Amino acid sequence: MKNFVFHNPTKLIFGENTIKEIGKEIKNHGIKKILLHYGGGSIKKNGVYDVVINSLKENNIEWIEVSGVKPNPRLSKVYEGIKIAKENNVEGILAVGGGSVIDSSKAIAGGFYYDGDIWDAYSGKYNIEKALPLFTVLTLSATGSEMNGNSVITKEETKQKWATHSKALYPKVSIIDPTAQYTLPTKQTINGAVDAISHVMEYYFDGTPGTEIQSQIAEGIIRTVIKSTEILLNNPKDYDARSNLAWSATLALNGLLMAGSSGGDWSSHGLEHSVSALFDIAHGEGLAIIFPAWLEYVKNEDIDKFDRFAKEIFNIDTGNPSTDAKLGIEALKEWYKKIGQPISLKEIGATENDIDKLVENAVQRAPMGKLKKLGEKEIRDIYLIALNNK
Amino acid sequence: MKNFVFHNPTKLIFGENTIKEIGKEIKNHGIKKILLHYGGGSIKKNGVYDVVINSLKENNIEWIEVSGVKPNPRLSKVYEGIKIAKENNVEGILAVGGGSVIDSSKAIAGGFYYDGDIWDAYSGKYNIEKALPLFTVLTLSATGSEMNGNSVITKEETKQKWATHSKALYPKVSIIDPTAQYTLPTKQTINGAVDAISHVMEYYFDGTPGTEIQSQIAEGIIRTVIKSTEILLNNPKDYDARSNLAWSATLALNGLLMAGSSGGDWSSHGLEHSVSALFDIAHGEGLAIIFPAWLEYVKNEDIDKFDRFAKEIFNIDTGNPSTDAKLGIEALKEWYKKIGQPISLKEIGATENDIDKLVENAVQRAPMGKLKKLGEKEIRDIYLIALNNK
Repeated sequence: MKNFVFHNPTKLIFGENTIKEIGKEIKNHGIKKILLHYGGGSIKKNGVYDVVINSLKENNIEWIEVSGVKPNPRLSKVYEGIKIAKENNVEGILAVGGGSVIDSSKAIAGGFYYDGDIWDAYSGKYNIEKALPLFTVLTLSATGSEMNGNSVITKEETKQKWATHSKALYPKVSIIDPTAQYTLPTKQTINGAVDAISHVMEYYFDGTPGTEIQSQIAEGIIRTVIKSTEILLNNPKDYDARSNLAWSATLALNGLLMAGSSGGDWSSHGLEHSVSALFDIAHGEGLAIIFPAWLEYVKNEDIDKFDRFAKEIFNIDTGNPSTDAKLGIEALKEWYKKIGQPISLKEIGATENDIDKLVENAVQRAPMGKLKKLGEKEIRDIYLIALNNK
Repeated sequence: MKNFVFHNPTKLIFGENTIKEIGKEIKNHGIKKILLHYGGGSIKKNGVYDVVINSLKENNIEWIEVSGVKPNPRLSKVYEGIKIAKENNVEGILAVGGGSVIDSSKAIAGGFYYDGDIWDAYSGKYNIEKALPLFTVLTLSATGSEMNGNSVITKEETKQKWATHSKALYPKVSIIDPTAQYTLPTKQTINGAVDAISHVMEYYFDGTPGTEIQSQIAEGIIRTVIKSTEILLNNPKDYDARSNLAWSATLALNGLLMAGSSGGDWSSHGLEHSVSALFDIAHGEGLAIIFPAWLEYVKNEDIDKFDRFAKEIFNIDTGNPSTDAKLGIEALKEWYKKIGQPISLKEIGATENDIDKLVENAVQRAPMGKLKKLGEKEIRDIYLIALNNK
């Protein structure tokens, strides 16, 4: 186990009928005017918007709206948010939506106090040390952004989908009401589940020895996500399944699994970001395509862990670690197929001609990875596996 | 799953050679003078004291020492600490030791700002809303006090061992260096392990349905504690086993398992507090005696969970839930015996004549429990099971 610092100051309010608390929480921080940031119209359809607005009004909090955040949130929207936040002297940001909205809010929160281009934080030229206080109401469990300091933004012109991290970007308060996710399109629930599983696997397979407790928790989260997702496919309004999926997705990326690890591998996320930047598919779809290909490519680097994964997640135990490792990856792909995810680049319309573009985009962040360092050759090899995976 | 708020602001620094950071962390909070609180001489023997003192000196932090904290920490020592803290106008408290030292520090931290008797916080007459900032260096993993707002203190005259909780009592910073536990007496390592398992079981068996992710994490912690303890019995200096046991014990009571539960059952802790208050045995020994008796007494209240426990922790699966439940409890007792714990009151010198005293002491906090409400009769029944358990 590696040395670590665990420090997650976010106050997480969880459960049915909790969204109405948001105004009071913002007021408790002495904030009187916020930027309200959200995506399309879903929060107006499912009633979340009205609950939030009533809570703001009841607590005498003024708000300015910036909406229209899209999946794979764009830098142009961030610039718009920063401009409006500055013009209106807001004192905080309230993100109402999924990970894209929260990530966009984080960029605005950091950009508010930075005179340069906030993209500098994503390209590695600037560390965000000060940010507007951030509050979130989560409507789609997936990225874990509600309880961490991470943000991923896409720069449209250059098709760069890059990430930043800062202690200053942890939300002060996040609210998760699982019932707000009852009306999600099935596809979004599934993408969230795949995202959560992928976060767990980034840590689980980063090659750090002596992390028994982290591995146990990781396996518990993956089993719970699989079980909950299967229940939700039949009954999207199963409260306990929604709760378990939601809280598992938060725990998957709130620092719990990072503690004691080598920081996670993150190659699959790096490779996926190029896929969703170029093809504009959902992150969860891209991960269902890329992660199994990466697993296949690197499995011999830590065959015992892959063997354990097969046994603990899919009850596979032939007695031969290599066989088990292989069968475990197959079982993961089968499960992704079963819930309706693509597992090959071909399925999202990519051809061999697209591989060069993907490699060129991804290689900007190379070398990547902990379990195995990936350079241009390895990146290409993995995309080629992903192209025709089945 | 129940609604919950998860908010744990403690910064946890973990790993080899981290104790020397403590001075800098205290200084970062703008604190120049602290009360240094510890127990007997063990921290002087194992070198922890010197590392702490050097770190304080390097960061120009003055300190006043109050030492001599005993297991089952006494109210009289708390009064002494409060008096000295006030006389010397300290700005914070540094606890160096195990859970007893940290709990005692919390009482002093709360008592510093309270004009009445700090025992009021333990008897339920006062809620601690303000406390001196607390820093801890943990030298015995067991109670989880390094990352929560709990404190248990014993009032000697009345033999009351009672608990309090406050947001104000969360340590600002806690440091856990697993190597500081290399030289612990085996018995203390074992008591810590039993304490950690017991904390997990208090939540696991509190009867809340729909807590799949919590149950998965609970099982993972228990399995890790068992595995790590067995390694340490053979090699007390196994770094990964120490690390896994230490971090598991912290996670067992840092709010993670409480989130979504009904708050935990806590009957076994209540019944044990009377045992260790009257017999002055270690809390971990008392829990090894009381918890199996409680499990036996209440198992039919939630037979499926007991069945699951047997399967997940001890691989017991006869196909009959009642049989499994019974065998699971037997297996837990066998494991406690194997690691050298008592499992009956008789083994610590109690006789049937002591039952009245125990009941009288415990019933002050009755009714207790969530899975089954315990009054005087039930409390007596459980002590009688515990008397001759084998």
